[in-house]
Amino acid sequence: MTAPACGFVSLVGAGPGHPDHLTQKAASRLRAADLVLHDALVSPEVLALARHAEVVCVGKRGGGEQTSQATIEHLLVAAGLAGRRVVRLKGGDPFVFGRGGEEALALQAAGIPFEVVPGLTTAIAAPALAGIPVTHRGTSSGFVVITASDESAFDATIAALPPGLLTLVAMMSVRARAGLTQRLIDRGWPAGTPAALVLGAATPHMWVWKGGLAQLATVAVPAPNGDAPGTIVVGAVAGLPIDLFEGFVTADARAGAHS
Amino acid sequence: MTAPACGFVSLVGAGPGHPDHLTQKAASRLRAADLVLHDALVSPEVLALARHAEVVCVGKRGGGEQTSQATIEHLLVAAGLAGRRVVRLKGGDPFVFGRGGEEALALQAAGIPFEVVPGLTTAIAAPALAGIPVTHRGTSSGFVVITASDESAFDATIAALPPGLLTLVAMMSVRARAGLTQRLIDRGWPAGTPAALVLGAATPHMWVWKGGLAQLATVAVPAPNGDAPGTIVVGAVAGLPIDLFEGFVTADARAGAHS
Repeated sequence: MTAPACGFVSLVGAGPGHPDHLTQKAASRLRAADLVLHDALVSPEVLALARHAEVVCVGKRGGGEQTSQATIEHLLVAAGLAGRRVVRLKGGDPFVFGRGGEEALALQAAGIPFEVVPGLTTAIAAPALAGIPVTHRGTSSGFVVITASDESAFDATIAALPPGLLTLVAMMSVRARAGLTQRLIDRGWPAGTPAALVLGAATPHMWVWKGGLAQLATVAVPAPNGDAPGTIVVGAVAGLPIDLFEGFVTADARAGAHS
Repeated sequence: MTAPACGFVSLVGAGPGHPDHLTQKAASRLRAADLVLHDALVSPEVLALARHAEVVCVGKRGGGEQTSQATIEHLLVAAGLAGRRVVRLKGGDPFVFGRGGEEALALQAAGIPFEVVPGLTTAIAAPALAGIPVTHRGTSSGFVVITASDESAFDATIAALPPGLLTLVAMMSVRARAGLTQRLIDRGWPAGTPAALVLGAATPHMWVWKGGLAQLATVAVPAPNGDAPGTIVVGAVAGLPIDLFEGFVTADARAGAHS
């Protein structure tokens, strides 16, 4: 790899939310950056570390405007050619549904030096902060992470996966929860399989629901416009009684049984 | 949860190796700890952050001695009851094959206040540092993480998973690579499916091999006694030409074709 200029691009994972969960390298890159291009899911507290940088949002949330992927790649290459120290900051991890691979390939093709700075993926950290280990001896020996945005792979995965064999983590809009639930029940997952939904992990608005799979479809969520990115966990690990988060909404509590 | 004493236990993920990849919270907990109980896979550079702590290794490597899980849990509870600030430090993430769930339940049962501090799991970070995104648009829309230590779940997962649908990440002893390869080929994964093996991610001894699945079984590894914990990736993402790591061993290079 040869560098046509002294620019450098770091593809950085911001983790699930709070700066506590940034890696030391990510924090260091933010402090040294002169340009930060970030997704909408990155928290203001994390962005505040980039004190010397121009900070540009290139993400979208809900139905809003979004900079196209091609434009983001052009911006990264242009900034690299201009000799800037760029952080491309993504919620979670750049290589887990983060399109970091596409950006890496674009930078490489343009001869811009770059690196990847992994971050905590929400797929694992959101359950963890809700007291759910994705693996647990005697309960689950592996896990699968999928998203609803590629519907054919999503359907094929659910069709193939024997109910209960692995912990299922789905990173998807909460709007899609009813469809996921129905597909799993159709596939033979018992309606009472423990399930959880985590929103806003590691933010002040973190919200966690735990209950049975059948209830996941209809649980009311505190999401603007009924939509938000969420982390869904289905499997026995979601039923382990590990109390890490005080703000649970449980199926029982919702029914008024106890709090 | 009520605290019988002022002790506090943090179940902390150390990430893949170098302190750069520690979270800010993990580093802070290490600096404040007065007792660190760590696994063998944690690097000396990370342990060096615990300047004020008694540091005890409770892990094993290869065929060596290991503190039993029950003993570790007793040590954690006893230290919590004694009012100590304890870090239980694990390579990777405490909730990904880390037995963090078991320790959380033991602490909770004993009334010891505790928290989980997620770390970068090697399952995602090791491939990332080798230039392999576990998901990539148009190539892989999800991934599955398994270990060979639970053989029945391992076999059932490979039997169920359609070849090529998801990226497969196996966290296992390198000794088990031939068995994994054979099972996948028997299940119909093409012998030329891109594969990678990563050892010592984010350490000075990091070693990466990329090649075809059939070659994975026999590739020579620089592991003491032919054994070491490794991260295996099987799927098209392992064939993406993202050059992040300079020290690759490729199938071609081994054959003397080119370097």
